[in-house]
Amino acid sequence: MSLTAGSPSTAPPERGYRTEHDMLGDVEVPADAYYGAHTVRAVANFPLTGETLATRPRLIGALAAVKCAAARANAEVGALDEVRATAVADACAEIRGGALHDQFVVDLLQGGAGTSTHMNANEVIANRALELLGHPRGRYTELHPLDHVNLGQSTNDVYPTAVKLALDPQIADLLTALAALRGAFAAKADEFAEVLKMGRTQLQDAVPMTLGQEFGAFAATLAEDEQRLAEVRPLLHELNLGGTAIGTGLNARPGYRERAVAHLRRLTGIPTLVSAPDLIEATQDTGVFVQLSGVLKRIAVKLSKICNDLRLLSSGPQTGLGEIRLPPRQAGSSIMPGKVNPVIPEAVNQIAFEVIGADVTVTLAAEGGQLQLNAFEPVIYRSLSAGLGHLAAGIGVLTEHCVRGITADRERLAASVAASTGLVTALGPALGYETACALALEAHHSGRPALDLIRERGLLTAAELHELTGPAALTGLPAAH
Amino acid sequence: MSLTAGSPSTAPPERGYRTEHDMLGDVEVPADAYYGAHTVRAVANFPLTGETLATRPRLIGALAAVKCAAARANAEVGALDEVRATAVADACAEIRGGALHDQFVVDLLQGGAGTSTHMNANEVIANRALELLGHPRGRYTELHPLDHVNLGQSTNDVYPTAVKLALDPQIADLLTALAALRGAFAAKADEFAEVLKMGRTQLQDAVPMTLGQEFGAFAATLAEDEQRLAEVRPLLHELNLGGTAIGTGLNARPGYRERAVAHLRRLTGIPTLVSAPDLIEATQDTGVFVQLSGVLKRIAVKLSKICNDLRLLSSGPQTGLGEIRLPPRQAGSSIMPGKVNPVIPEAVNQIAFEVIGADVTVTLAAEGGQLQLNAFEPVIYRSLSAGLGHLAAGIGVLTEHCVRGITADRERLAASVAASTGLVTALGPALGYETACALALEAHHSGRPALDLIRERGLLTAAELHELTGPAALTGLPAAH
Amino acid sequence: MSLTAGSPSTAPPERGYRTEHDMLGDVEVPADAYYGAHTVRAVANFPLTGETLATRPRLIGALAAVKCAAARANAEVGALDEVRATAVADACAEIRGGALHDQFVVDLLQGGAGTSTHMNANEVIANRALELLGHPRGRYTELHPLDHVNLGQSTNDVYPTAVKLALDPQIADLLTALAALRGAFAAKADEFAEVLKMGRTQLQDAVPMTLGQEFGAFAATLAEDEQRLAEVRPLLHELNLGGTAIGTGLNARPGYRERAVAHLRRLTGIPTLVSAPDLIEATQDTGVFVQLSGVLKRIAVKLSKICNDLRLLSSGPQTGLGEIRLPPRQAGSSIMPGKVNPVIPEAVNQIAFEVIGADVTVTLAAEGGQLQLNAFEPVIYRSLSAGLGHLAAGIGVLTEHCVRGITADRERLAASVAASTGLVTALGPALGYETACALALEAHHSGRPALDLIRERGLLTAAELHELTGPAALTGLPAAH
Amino acid sequence: MSLTAGSPSTAPPERGYRTEHDMLGDVEVPADAYYGAHTVRAVANFPLTGETLATRPRLIGALAAVKCAAARANAEVGALDEVRATAVADACAEIRGGALHDQFVVDLLQGGAGTSTHMNANEVIANRALELLGHPRGRYTELHPLDHVNLGQSTNDVYPTAVKLALDPQIADLLTALAALRGAFAAKADEFAEVLKMGRTQLQDAVPMTLGQEFGAFAATLAEDEQRLAEVRPLLHELNLGGTAIGTGLNARPGYRERAVAHLRRLTGIPTLVSAPDLIEATQDTGVFVQLSGVLKRIAVKLSKICNDLRLLSSGPQTGLGEIRLPPRQAGSSIMPGKVNPVIPEAVNQIAFEVIGADVTVTLAAEGGQLQLNAFEPVIYRSLSAGLGHLAAGIGVLTEHCVRGITADRERLAASVAASTGLVTALGPALGYETACALALEAHHSGRPALDLIRERGLLTAAELHELTGPAALTGLPAAH
Repeated sequence: MSLTAGSPSTAPPERGYRTEHDMLGDVEVPADAYYGAHTVRAVANFPLTGETLATRPRLIGALAAVKCAAARANAEVGALDEVRATAVADACAEIRGGALHDQFVVDLLQGGAGTSTHMNANEVIANRALELLGHPRGRYTELHPLDHVNLGQSTNDVYPTAVKLALDPQIADLLTALAALRGAFAAKADEFAEVLKMGRTQLQDAVPMTLGQEFGAFAATLAEDEQRLAEVRPLLHELNLGGTAIGTGLNARPGYRERAVAHLRRLTGIPTLVSAPDLIEATQDTGVFVQLSGVLKRIAVKLSKICNDLRLLSSGPQTGLGEIRLPPRQAGSSIMPGKVNPVIPEAVNQIAFEVIGADVTVTLAAEGGQLQLNAFEPVIYRSLSAGLGHLAAGIGVLTEHCVRGITADRERLAASVAASTGLVTALGPALGYETACALALEAHHSGRPALDLIRERGLLTAAELHELTGPAALTGLPAAH
Repeated sequence: MSLTAGSPSTAPPERGYRTEHDMLGDVEVPADAYYGAHTVRAVANFPLTGETLATRPRLIGALAAVKCAAARANAEVGALDEVRATAVADACAEIRGGALHDQFVVDLLQGGAGTSTHMNANEVIANRALELLGHPRGRYTELHPLDHVNLGQSTNDVYPTAVKLALDPQIADLLTALAALRGAFAAKADEFAEVLKMGRTQLQDAVPMTLGQEFGAFAATLAEDEQRLAEVRPLLHELNLGGTAIGTGLNARPGYRERAVAHLRRLTGIPTLVSAPDLIEATQDTGVFVQLSGVLKRIAVKLSKICNDLRLLSSGPQTGLGEIRLPPRQAGSSIMPGKVNPVIPEAVNQIAFEVIGADVTVTLAAEGGQLQLNAFEPVIYRSLSAGLGHLAAGIGVLTEHCVRGITADRERLAASVAASTGLVTALGPALGYETACALALEAHHSGRPALDLIRERGLLTAAELHELTGPAALTGLPAAH
Repeated sequence: MSLTAGSPSTAPPERGYRTEHDMLGDVEVPADAYYGAHTVRAVANFPLTGETLATRPRLIGALAAVKCAAARANAEVGALDEVRATAVADACAEIRGGALHDQFVVDLLQGGAGTSTHMNANEVIANRALELLGHPRGRYTELHPLDHVNLGQSTNDVYPTAVKLALDPQIADLLTALAALRGAFAAKADEFAEVLKMGRTQLQDAVPMTLGQEFGAFAATLAEDEQRLAEVRPLLHELNLGGTAIGTGLNARPGYRERAVAHLRRLTGIPTLVSAPDLIEATQDTGVFVQLSGVLKRIAVKLSKICNDLRLLSSGPQTGLGEIRLPPRQAGSSIMPGKVNPVIPEAVNQIAFEVIGADVTVTLAAEGGQLQLNAFEPVIYRSLSAGLGHLAAGIGVLTEHCVRGITADRERLAASVAASTGLVTALGPALGYETACALALEAHHSGRPALDLIRERGLLTAAELHELTGPAALTGLPAAH
Repeated sequence: MSLTAGSPSTAPPERGYRTEHDMLGDVEVPADAYYGAHTVRAVANFPLTGETLATRPRLIGALAAVKCAAARANAEVGALDEVRATAVADACAEIRGGALHDQFVVDLLQGGAGTSTHMNANEVIANRALELLGHPRGRYTELHPLDHVNLGQSTNDVYPTAVKLALDPQIADLLTALAALRGAFAAKADEFAEVLKMGRTQLQDAVPMTLGQEFGAFAATLAEDEQRLAEVRPLLHELNLGGTAIGTGLNARPGYRERAVAHLRRLTGIPTLVSAPDLIEATQDTGVFVQLSGVLKRIAVKLSKICNDLRLLSSGPQTGLGEIRLPPRQAGSSIMPGKVNPVIPEAVNQIAFEVIGADVTVTLAAEGGQLQLNAFEPVIYRSLSAGLGHLAAGIGVLTEHCVRGITADRERLAASVAASTGLVTALGPALGYETACALALEAHHSGRPALDLIRERGLLTAAELHELTGPAALTGLPAAH
């Protein structure tokens, strides 16, 4: 089963191996690989999910951006010579352009707080930079993955920084998707602005409203979600780059941190990137990820509720509520001819359930941090990036393949308002609660419209009835033009 | 706010104080209190939820049973003299009979792995035993809460043992409640055995069934839950009593463990109580609580689904499915006269949500155990005992105040079957999927019954139609008598 | 077991009964009760947790504030006469002052979207107002719980409004508690500002830092939590009062809504209370509660991590890290003499687990909302109010009984820095990663300090060593005075 | 980003398209595709996770087994001619052998209760069977995906049946992995059987034990997990195949169900496969998945606790507990030379967090079932199959790359026992709790061994001391040979 693959290849490489060396001894690396010894060990250590770094191009790009910024900053403070810095920066630029992603072969799920991800990046960048300088891969005496590419850096500041930079555009995508869905609901709110229907509380007939109000509420609730998501975004712009191992900045030269962050602002185009005020706190803390996950969960809850409502309102065709129709997208059944199911909302419900579960995963991982570091950021990143991606994809499908095509069964809706005892509520203040109550029960049991009973008994005049049960009075909307 | 109470009394006690002593110094204890110094410190340390041990009489009884069994066993192995053993046992018997529960004043939520709960019990028992021996409270030179009442014991074996013994009868109560609810559904299944209705998948009309089958499925699913819950019960009967601090049995005399467990069997009437095979594992492990919590969550999930169905099937009265009616229990609305809501299922839904959330609490607490002990058993017990109690109470209300009084709207159900295109499925094999599909669509769009179209076009003979759409063919039940 | 109590009293009331009437028939109400028929039915329907409304005085006060504001607003728009309005307002004032809380006898956990809570309030207020007007309780022809106390209102706008007003001061309390804990950590950060120690990543020795930096990070992380919590607070100030049943404002007079909210601002002293822009959305949406719950979960995660760290750093006394000592609060063991345990952090860990679990409960309840209402707000309120209360209580205890009394084992800390190979990291840039690596391994295996090896081999000069391993270089702090 | 791929290919197919038809109209299908119109629509509808059915070969194999069994059974009851039945069976055999998996192109996460997965299978099987019969793909008049391949079946019985059959061997794999890990721990328990160490409760020194006992407890706790997992397995063997759409068996011939299940027993080699007693319940119920998920969560909790312990016991090297050493697997840090981290346990912790979160996902999906079906089984299957796979992979790595290579620091352990005041506990019964307590405190504060103080003061004789503090007395193990 591919779940346990994780290895870049099981066949021996065509061009043979080169030998590299790390603190544990010699390692055979495929001769044409850009990654090196640390990566090979990590691939062997983590054959866990089969989902490699290559499935997350944004993380790879973010790592390259951080490495480029660090090289430039190190050159500026005199820690790194210009030749090597330029080679590193050029390699990073290629990677950010999409090159060499297939060299990121480590499993996303890994121990070591992201060290293997980071080492994979350091090695690929070093070997590509070596190549640019005219050296063969593996000639680390010329340019070293750690001494040069990682100069003044640590996994513990590089990895969370890259993770934040990788999540940021995913948040932007999700905001775009949410805005489109909100727009689609708002358009339906306009389309159905004058379609009267019965509102329901606790699944029981309540009082009248318009279908436009119902869809307008979906739009309004999504607008709030967009705000919450937009609020969490700047929290991700506080970086601990420059803190190195535990936030004390050990081994980073004076001035390096400020310059590195400035380069990142330039490279990413995110002007609000700043250094966290307390780098020790920022290195160990995962609060921002918990916050983001909480907001994703909130969005998931709202989406799931909306999808539940869409499925309920479109239930039928004969024995359900049947108030709206979702556009048919595929045959609904392998056995029931002609059946059409609400497959798009159902898919979104499931994405919501996934995101809600992932919030617990993120919570546990965050709670498990110890002392100066949280070793579990890889699973946090994996969960958040999947959740953001799936939510954006699901919302896109919901917008295009479902909401935009919704139609209303206007006849059915009109009939249901006329038949409902819910109208009696509107007459409560005029009749008194107990009289209204008795009328409602009588109407319900006799099957006769409550309005008829009221007219019969002269409880209200025709004028009173007309005013109290007109659309404006019922729905709180301005009287129709 | 009473949430932060936790103190037995804020006014100074009428009869003044006696002075006790522990490793941290002197402590003033109300003169007429049966508890002692450790309890007083614990009350000051944990003013957290206001929910004291006194709210859990079963835990108090279980603690007394364990202490009684230990005293008897210690006497039998010669570790404790008969006079003190009898005094302790007599005090425990009184407590098991309901006495002195108001002396259990510590907050349920506490640090220390249950030590404060245990100390509270040791002190109350010691002081009551002293009294029985003619000594004043606090005269610990005669009979000591730790040297005698706790002889050969540790919180780490006494507390989990007592917790298991306290949960066991709650499980029995829940099993009884589940069986009653199952019986109520089975009775409805009989009552509605011949009421045809449309089954629904994905909230869309599917194929016919009987309302009896629908209720029978509720009964069947609860029967499975009862089995799962019954299976977890014996796992709670494996005790680590005798393991003392970490399971090595340090300070417990040879023979003590076996005798103590035998006494517990006698005292509790649970014949299946046994010593765990590996006491070290049993002392640190909370797997049985995770398992129990998982089964409670499963029951919660099923109950919530059933309540969702009941609310859906009874939705209306005019604009919902309206297939069944729940017995009205109270006015449903403060503003909408005559509205009746499914308040009982709604309450049970909420209990289910609470239990599902508590499963996460138990999970986190279990995961947080370290090395030879899990310090978080108090919150595990608190969660499980609340969940068991609330589930049993909620199920009881659901059975008595809701399910037993459910009635069917037989006319509406019959009409819905006749109108449905879902019948076409039954003709699929005879007509072919694509022809059936086209018929279903035509029926849906034209509003004409599909059977009429089939007859009109002579696609099937009357005899074929009769056989394929009879109740027996449709619902898989034996032909009616 | 008291879990299933819920009834105000099982003995018949001394002064007998009065008969009231609702849509389901006659109800016997204790003659001296201020509550009425709806409450009696609700008590019978929901014998679930034994935790009544009376355990939440802030909710009772908030309900009274809403009712008072509504009465005043109704009088101002001419819907309610001044005599009745004043009587209602006076009754509400008494209740806000603490009177009649024992009359709020309904279980917190209830079906019906809070209707029973609301009815309980309407009835108590009506009967007290009747009394103030010189009428006997139950004389609803003079002043009716629904026609007058509930005029122009619905559970669906009153209940969520009251819940928000009840949670607001609990948030204020939690903010106060967090600030105090932050202050205690900041004071320790000052106290330990120059105590060098080894930082740890992944529980392995990393690089040096000060104990003051470690405690300073706790203060910094809590400051962020305070900000997040403060941000969620204004979201609770958006009210749907005036929306009545589903947000259309049916039965509320023009001008009522604005005036009622203005009165609430005055009564509560919260100047930022406003009407939600879309009352239909606001009536069905529970996003604000999900958001609040998410922030509480975040706080819980941080607190739990901090408590884990405190327990780890104080582990020992002989075989643990032993870097700090928590103040002893009680004897730690019933069997192990002299043992002192980290009981306060352990209690806070458990509160954190409870809050994290409750977040799942809130999530499920929020997801379960349907169409124009969420019927599950009672469990949402119950979870949030318990979580807020327990967190504030736990943080208070942590501050006073633990953090303020923490001391450092300075000798041990100093010795650990001297012995650590972690210092080699500081020399990495000077030596090169691979040389440093080999040195660290040699030091580790030989048991000799790495600095000695460096000196021996002349790899660095004494001056270089002095500069690279001084406190300023190691911890990133300004050089000592 | 590949997360939103989902499409088998974006370039137009080389050999052009064929036109197929479904109830919604014409569909262009790549000419050489074995899948058909329904699959093409599903690919367009669900571009959600990029994880297609092809990543789950066991599900594909299980679907083919069900289809084969159904064809054989249909032939035996005379519903399907032998020629078509054989062609279908042969196609299924090829697929079970690994062929055509690349034709399963639908996203795992999909709406429609698995209908698209099922349709994908029906179409691939039909087209391959057509080919075997000498017909071109798409010639459905000869052999139809629904009329023949799906004869007497529904997604609602086929999909859950296939899911159960696909999970079963994954459970077997996990059981194998657990047994190997248990074996590795048991071997360490033997190896360390006589290595004395201090046990710890609440991270504080408690009483002595052996390192062998500590590892033995890990083995024992995993043995219990294996039992729980083995118990859940037969629950998966209850199938609803033959129930068709909602469990009534509509359209399935008499005898078909029994024969189909018998064929499945033969094909899968699982002799315990049976029909569920209530097919209606079995069709809508997801209790077995909730149960399995609960057991996986339990395993995850245990594994995470064990990994936490391994990381704690191996913390250091200088400033941690340092009792054991994990085999180094890779350089631990990009900045700290020589640092080795517990990367394998950290990876397993994260898998555990993922599984615990997925349990919430499964719970929500199960709770969301409505009436006669749960539409959310795709996310349930996705979560469970990922969890089973990741757990087995993680446990495998933990066994091979970590546990088998663990060594003990015997000197350090011996020294810690000698220095510990925890020994005083063993003398508690002989000295009395209060005297022992005072001694422990004095020893702690003076830094002198408690045993010395006892000897000095003649509190116990040398012989008494020898007996009470010997390994046998301390650890409960039989006296050494």
